[in-house]
Amino acid sequence: MVTISFLTSGDFDRVSKEDWSPFERLETISDMCRFNALSAVKLAGSGHLGSSLSSMELFVWLYFHHMNVVELGVDHPDRDIFFSSKGHDCPGMYSVLMARGILPYEKLLKLRRLGGLDGHPDIHIPSVEANSGSLGMGISKAKGMALGKKLQGRKGRVYVMTGDGELQEGQIWESLQTTAHQKVENVTAIVDRNQIQTDMCVSDIIGLGDLEQKFRSFGWHAVTCNGHDFSDLDRAFREADAVRDRPKVIIADTVKGKGVSFMEGPRALEEGKGMYPWHAGAPADDVHEAATREVLERVNLAREKRGLPPLSPEIVEKREPRKSSLKATAEKVVTAYGEALLELGGKRKDLVVLDGDLSEDCGLRPFEKAYPDRFIENGIAEQDMVSTAGGLALQGLLPVVNSFGSFLSSRANEQIYNNVGEKTKIIYACHYAGLIPAGPGKSHQSVRDISLFGALPRCAIVEGCNGAETKMLVNWCVEEAEETCMIRLVISPSPRTIQLPAGYELRPGRGVELRPGKDGILFSSGPVMLHEALKASELLEKEGVGIAVVNMPWLNRVDPAWFDGILADHRYLFSLDNHSPVGGLGDTLLNALDRGGKRGKVSFAKFAVEGDLACGTPPEALRAHRLDGESLADRIREAVGRKPS
Amino acid sequence: MVTISFLTSGDFDRVSKEDWSPFERLETISDMCRFNALSAVKLAGSGHLGSSLSSMELFVWLYFHHMNVVELGVDHPDRDIFFSSKGHDCPGMYSVLMARGILPYEKLLKLRRLGGLDGHPDIHIPSVEANSGSLGMGISKAKGMALGKKLQGRKGRVYVMTGDGELQEGQIWESLQTTAHQKVENVTAIVDRNQIQTDMCVSDIIGLGDLEQKFRSFGWHAVTCNGHDFSDLDRAFREADAVRDRPKVIIADTVKGKGVSFMEGPRALEEGKGMYPWHAGAPADDVHEAATREVLERVNLAREKRGLPPLSPEIVEKREPRKSSLKATAEKVVTAYGEALLELGGKRKDLVVLDGDLSEDCGLRPFEKAYPDRFIENGIAEQDMVSTAGGLALQGLLPVVNSFGSFLSSRANEQIYNNVGEKTKIIYACHYAGLIPAGPGKSHQSVRDISLFGALPRCAIVEGCNGAETKMLVNWCVEEAEETCMIRLVISPSPRTIQLPAGYELRPGRGVELRPGKDGILFSSGPVMLHEALKASELLEKEGVGIAVVNMPWLNRVDPAWFDGILADHRYLFSLDNHSPVGGLGDTLLNALDRGGKRGKVSFAKFAVEGDLACGTPPEALRAHRLDGESLADRIREAVGRKPS
Repeated sequence: MVTISFLTSGDFDRVSKEDWSPFERLETISDMCRFNALSAVKLAGSGHLGSSLSSMELFVWLYFHHMNVVELGVDHPDRDIFFSSKGHDCPGMYSVLMARGILPYEKLLKLRRLGGLDGHPDIHIPSVEANSGSLGMGISKAKGMALGKKLQGRKGRVYVMTGDGELQEGQIWESLQTTAHQKVENVTAIVDRNQIQTDMCVSDIIGLGDLEQKFRSFGWHAVTCNGHDFSDLDRAFREADAVRDRPKVIIADTVKGKGVSFMEGPRALEEGKGMYPWHAGAPADDVHEAATREVLERVNLAREKRGLPPLSPEIVEKREPRKSSLKATAEKVVTAYGEALLELGGKRKDLVVLDGDLSEDCGLRPFEKAYPDRFIENGIAEQDMVSTAGGLALQGLLPVVNSFGSFLSSRANEQIYNNVGEKTKIIYACHYAGLIPAGPGKSHQSVRDISLFGALPRCAIVEGCNGAETKMLVNWCVEEAEETCMIRLVISPSPRTIQLPAGYELRPGRGVELRPGKDGILFSSGPVMLHEALKASELLEKEGVGIAVVNMPWLNRVDPAWFDGILADHRYLFSLDNHSPVGGLGDTLLNALDRGGKRGKVSFAKFAVEGDLACGTPPEALRAHRLDGESLADRIREAVGRKPS
Repeated sequence: MVTISFLTSGDFDRVSKEDWSPFERLETISDMCRFNALSAVKLAGSGHLGSSLSSMELFVWLYFHHMNVVELGVDHPDRDIFFSSKGHDCPGMYSVLMARGILPYEKLLKLRRLGGLDGHPDIHIPSVEANSGSLGMGISKAKGMALGKKLQGRKGRVYVMTGDGELQEGQIWESLQTTAHQKVENVTAIVDRNQIQTDMCVSDIIGLGDLEQKFRSFGWHAVTCNGHDFSDLDRAFREADAVRDRPKVIIADTVKGKGVSFMEGPRALEEGKGMYPWHAGAPADDVHEAATREVLERVNLAREKRGLPPLSPEIVEKREPRKSSLKATAEKVVTAYGEALLELGGKRKDLVVLDGDLSEDCGLRPFEKAYPDRFIENGIAEQDMVSTAGGLALQGLLPVVNSFGSFLSSRANEQIYNNVGEKTKIIYACHYAGLIPAGPGKSHQSVRDISLFGALPRCAIVEGCNGAETKMLVNWCVEEAEETCMIRLVISPSPRTIQLPAGYELRPGRGVELRPGKDGILFSSGPVMLHEALKASELLEKEGVGIAVVNMPWLNRVDPAWFDGILADHRYLFSLDNHSPVGGLGDTLLNALDRGGKRGKVSFAKFAVEGDLACGTPPEALRAHRLDGESLADRIREAVGRKPS
């Protein structure tokens, strides 16, 4: 049994009225917010703690002391503006916004839930000034805001926080050059220099060198301070605010995981043998209890010293230990992907794997450890990674490029196009493809990747329905494909392992029927949507509606003879995309139906991820987009003209 | 009458056998190659002279003196590698490759022609090591090549040339960080620091500051030299080659337009009042003659001093002066676009125009001059430009973002997606959209832009058929649209001005019939393809085949009632895309046909830009893709089952 509890608005009100010196009050508020950030992530089941904790004093400094946001109102034209460019620190920021009375307490209990607080900042949330989560965009956007204020004679300063790993993104350096050149002096960047990105030291991934010197050589005023010390923050912000002839950067030296002894950077790295375990994810029950206990004890010790009564957080949930979590039991296609790469690495000495600081999430560790010479850790620099792969391919090697689909397919799109033009072969792995897990929000949800690769000449786009097929596809991409390949991989464990028929073999352009049905046929791909498709088919079967389900791992090619055969006498064809309705599997099938200007009488309907992406749990997000099994059954029933049973 | 002549392989052979001191020989070869570069661009009718001339001594140094390419062979695994990341200097590079015997003389006469030499480097050309023309990718790719050599135990050094304006691209700084961190010491970047980008000083667009210091702060060894002085190049390359513990950069100070007095940077800028006129384009007849005369005189004066007989170039073409060129007479939609922005700028004080160093090409000068406060010149930094627009929009302004479609839609794709998620409204203008002019090659041809914007929620994609409709669309985007808009604009003058019916008004989702026809109906958009569509219809009419032509300015929306009405009794529907077959107008129409799972008996065929993009003149490229009027007539005739008349 784990207890998840929060400090309430009442607690923060009380502290604001008690007798504290200003900076001591900020210190205890910081720890109180740490407590709530830990609880919010535990309640949500996921979220980024390390960075929430390292930037906590910065958030508190800005919202409780330095900025005029509360004084003027969060929508006032003359307000000071702050936002975090890295964005994954939002559990920390939301806790501070709640503490400051900007966000209601109830909202903080709905982190990463539908109708709650997005897993990365979104401007529908009061006082969130910009959507973030895609790294490197913040200084550019801050510049735009500062220019917007200037053009309209609005007052207020513009602050933007970046990570240090984030500075590997090229857009940062573009924005440093332009902001200085355009003399947009009303921008102050704050670097949360906690020295750890994802799960390793920045200096081990791609070191940044002398940051102050770099910023100065780009025309910025740079000041360094201790990001956990309010006196030093005071000094640094005063210095920065006084500079009026150029943009400013405050480099705040911080500790990742600050405030929870065993999560703090140096110790955690040592215990993790160079790997930092607290970047993302909700800690286990015992860890959560140890962390919150430590923080609360510090809060109450400080109170005790001042003769103040202890705070006692409100219990929000008592949770039974989960005997077996989905994560532990279910199949992850990314594991199969990593195994396939490892196997192929032994056979193919030309295989080179590239990573953009997501080795663990992308299943690359086995390859990384086995073939360190052929593993290139490129940091958060997707464009550089893709063009580096281009150079490797020109030298006759076979690069496999990895990142989340939302980043790889879009940020490096022109570089991918350039490589394809050279007629070399490169394999792009778009991880975290599709709508779910929908907790991190739209910056991480990749529902445009098929469309972003679709118009490239000579590019096969594939997605496996389970681990076995994923391996077959990786093998096909490496050993058989002549063209560039994009392989989509969902990051979540599958709610069920999709079963393929015995003896199933891959054949380009051909899918396979997973479940028969006489009234209609539903095509989909990947474990997430096939699970929902099968569920819909199972539900409808009970009503006497037979919907065949086809696993279609080839997302942009269809074997015409096979297609005509499998459609046979079906009157209804449905497609289900873990992707936007534009440019996904649905459009591929529609074009296949229509080839040669002729087509039978089959009626076609497309199910896909439409409109703005829902943030929430997987069931919430699927339901919100009407793509869960029940909703699909409803939609199919309606399409085939049956009444609900 | 203008005479276009070239120095032949015989001339270069002769010089190689004559008695010259090594560097004096390189000097005269440089001037001989200047002569040929000028002639190649004049013959082609377009091309980049300024940068070809500034980097000439660098090319000559590398291919004639420093590298082992000719000695080992252009495909030898141990060869030294050189390529230009900026790429638009290729008329200069091709001239040197011809002079060195790597490219045949005949090829140099086919610059920017089908089957000739691409307007930007392409690896199908012997000794071209990488495709370039999209700026900022070169150092990353060089790193990949150097890693590739290392992994395979291959010898040879890797050199990559960048422009100085090109250093505004963020990917450059990503690659500087990773190359240094990964200790890829076998990379030498060469910056052709000619101080002018497109048509203005780098320091006026986005200044670079102390470049040496910047490179050093990124962990590179930096050495500066005079890029036109072979003794100094010798010193700099010796120094760079001797450094073995880190990547190196040679910053070569050069003069844009070097070697033709009136094209040389400082003088040309002064005469152009701050604008440099010789970046791109073929000079007028008299200018060409003056330039080549000056260069040839210098070549022959040097020979005379040595008692050598003058060289006399081979005349390749005598060209009658063109009384009226297409450029002078025909309509350019971009002009109408610029006029519309200017008009709206007076009415709408919230309109802000952003440019990525292409103000002239994008028709922005009138707005830039009239509203300098609301014009943001952002240099070659598309990602930063788009996120800056995002910040401006969050402050309530209406940004209009400009670049070539191939760059804007792909390089800044993730930034565009991020902005759309904020539900602000921004107008993106994708210039240079489509297949033609096909001379610059695939880096500049934008046939994926509709697909790259297509899966965004809330984005209207439009293209006008002529100047009048372009103005209507700009007005609609600014004054009426609630969503983000992407407007496609071709850069070429239209071969004919498309005529709209009297009283034509824009209605979202509705096109307009330009020409009647009973046998089939052909939808297209934009002046380039509508001209070919009309030509096809005119040709077929003579054979008794009536093909209606519809101008469809809405590329991703269709008004269903109008669509059903205009299809009426047509049996054949054709779409013609100035875009890839994937994700363009054709797919929009196919989805419209299929909506609600029902569709009449109309047969559908899609014409689009398939496969690898042809580089050549507009007629060559259209014909190569079977999209010229004649080819379309053939394809339609076949589809409707008629025999050729």
